[in-house]
Amino acid sequence: MKVTELGEFGLIDLLAEMAYRTQDKQTPAGQQLIIGIGDDAAAWRGNTSIQLVTVDSFIQDVHFSLDITPWKEVGWKALAVNLSDIAAMGGMPRYAVVSLALPGDTEVDDITVLYQGMIELAQKSGVAIIGGDTSNAPQVAINITVLGSIQSQHENVLTRAGARAGDRIAVTGYLGAASAGWEMLNKKLQFDAETTVHLKQAFLHPYPRIAEGQLLLEQGVKAAIDISDGLVSDLNHICQASQLSARIDVDSVPIHPDVRINFGDRALELALSGGEDYELLFTGSTEVIDRIRKIATCPITVIGEMVADKESTVALVDRQGNPFKLRKGGWEHFTKR
Amino acid sequence: MKVTELGEFGLIDLLAEMAYRTQDKQTPAGQQLIIGIGDDAAAWRGNTSIQLVTVDSFIQDVHFSLDITPWKEVGWKALAVNLSDIAAMGGMPRYAVVSLALPGDTEVDDITVLYQGMIELAQKSGVAIIGGDTSNAPQVAINITVLGSIQSQHENVLTRAGARAGDRIAVTGYLGAASAGWEMLNKKLQFDAETTVHLKQAFLHPYPRIAEGQLLLEQGVKAAIDISDGLVSDLNHICQASQLSARIDVDSVPIHPDVRINFGDRALELALSGGEDYELLFTGSTEVIDRIRKIATCPITVIGEMVADKESTVALVDRQGNPFKLRKGGWEHFTKR
Repeated sequence: MKVTELGEFGLIDLLAEMAYRTQDKQTPAGQQLIIGIGDDAAAWRGNTSIQLVTVDSFIQDVHFSLDITPWKEVGWKALAVNLSDIAAMGGMPRYAVVSLALPGDTEVDDITVLYQGMIELAQKSGVAIIGGDTSNAPQVAINITVLGSIQSQHENVLTRAGARAGDRIAVTGYLGAASAGWEMLNKKLQFDAETTVHLKQAFLHPYPRIAEGQLLLEQGVKAAIDISDGLVSDLNHICQASQLSARIDVDSVPIHPDVRINFGDRALELALSGGEDYELLFTGSTEVIDRIRKIATCPITVIGEMVADKESTVALVDRQGNPFKLRKGGWEHFTKR
Repeated sequence: MKVTELGEFGLIDLLAEMAYRTQDKQTPAGQQLIIGIGDDAAAWRGNTSIQLVTVDSFIQDVHFSLDITPWKEVGWKALAVNLSDIAAMGGMPRYAVVSLALPGDTEVDDITVLYQGMIELAQKSGVAIIGGDTSNAPQVAINITVLGSIQSQHENVLTRAGARAGDRIAVTGYLGAASAGWEMLNKKLQFDAETTVHLKQAFLHPYPRIAEGQLLLEQGVKAAIDISDGLVSDLNHICQASQLSARIDVDSVPIHPDVRINFGDRALELALSGGEDYELLFTGSTEVIDRIRKIATCPITVIGEMVADKESTVALVDRQGNPFKLRKGGWEHFTKR
């Protein structure tokens, strides 16, 4: 069987099951492990804090195209997606190692600019880039590992498996602008100057929700994920890990204003399944979410609730409770479409 | 300027200098940092131990060819090169995250076998594989980050910068067999069955010197590197980081017996510049090295000494003190040859 037939999530499950053998509770490494493969980041117990690690690849013509993503933003995004994973665990990112594969005929100036984009975000986030390697390769590939930690007063981390039936589902910020920006750049859509800037920024320059992730953890949230594949697809990850289902009221989904105004009927679709917004999707009691809404410096919107149903489905309903049908799900590598 | 013109080490220097800006001593991350970019691994001070991180890419047709490296050994080696970096710092590897890029038409069975090779070494070394990601890409690329630690009783790590003038230079094990194995497989050279097995194992199945690295640190060694690029090239890294030069007595270099017997005049060249042996190259006083030789379970050979000369050259001399000329140096990406 080919990898394409198995699909990305099938492959991940297979490899995770094999890797599980190395997490033997008899070894020091296995004993201290809290979360292995299958969440936004892995977590283990240090002596006075919880340690986190996450890795993400950012590959030319797979994850990004130089046609629409300038070198500086390639660097920014390659780091941002990792910081977002640490944020989704409630952690503080601390160190990064950067592995860079590139063709020998790449301009050194372009790589310098790429690195500048990465360093800008690293400095804003208090992350030190402390290692890496470089290789010759047919296309540009950036592989970043970020290490983070959670202060010792917290006994837990935000996981995909932490949701409970009856939890409200909430999301930070607005959705759909990143994928709308991607469409705008790819299809050369024309909008007014302000909209153009907003959508471009949303796609090219996402800000990981680091402070918000820590706030969620502090306020008692147990379940969170960052929206990289798309709201429905990422909520599905929470459902599967928590062995629950979810119901989303599509009328309450916070569609980014620029998307709502300019993308007509497709706006909701972009918000539900567009991906790459890097907002945090989380669940908690009404009280917990109300508390967070008062403190947070970004919008926090309740969009649905977790349901006691092990089928792990995400049901979309409108305000009248009628089913709403979405055309396609989130992003999955290796799947023919 | 193209990356090819700058060369791998030029590129690394450039990026390291830029990354240095993120290591601000005013930030918590910068404060705790002991070693940033430029050694086998980065190191920072945890609460009760020193933490280590290293990353290495293993890319098809750049670092390995499926023509001569079976899938299982691809997995083994991809992890081994990283464990060797942790060993070269005197650390104990603990956790690994594995990033896998591969074409969609790869056989799932092949990936399973690759993972088996990796898991076999992980289990032998007490390393838990706790995360990773998978991507679609035109060729197979494995990017592994390994986290390790050094127990708190040690206040230092083994670094490239730790050598002192007058230090003896020593090496673990025998050299040249990995590159001889590579030549054998590539050029389809014929040897007797036992030699064939030895050389193949040396190239495909290197054992990182984890226990030895810890022994060196315990016994007071300050400078070490693992031999990945080749003895001369890696010793040059120590020279540059320590602002010293080195003199090697080529007659004392421990050439692997199978190489010495079968490769004639080229045996020494393979031992000096072949690379991929993953032995440890280190420096220390005669007393320290004698002590290590008594305890170590592998051969420890003194091959030269560090010299007070900031030119950072590696001089090769024979037993009579006559200069010896080597045809080529170690491996460098992006350099035209």
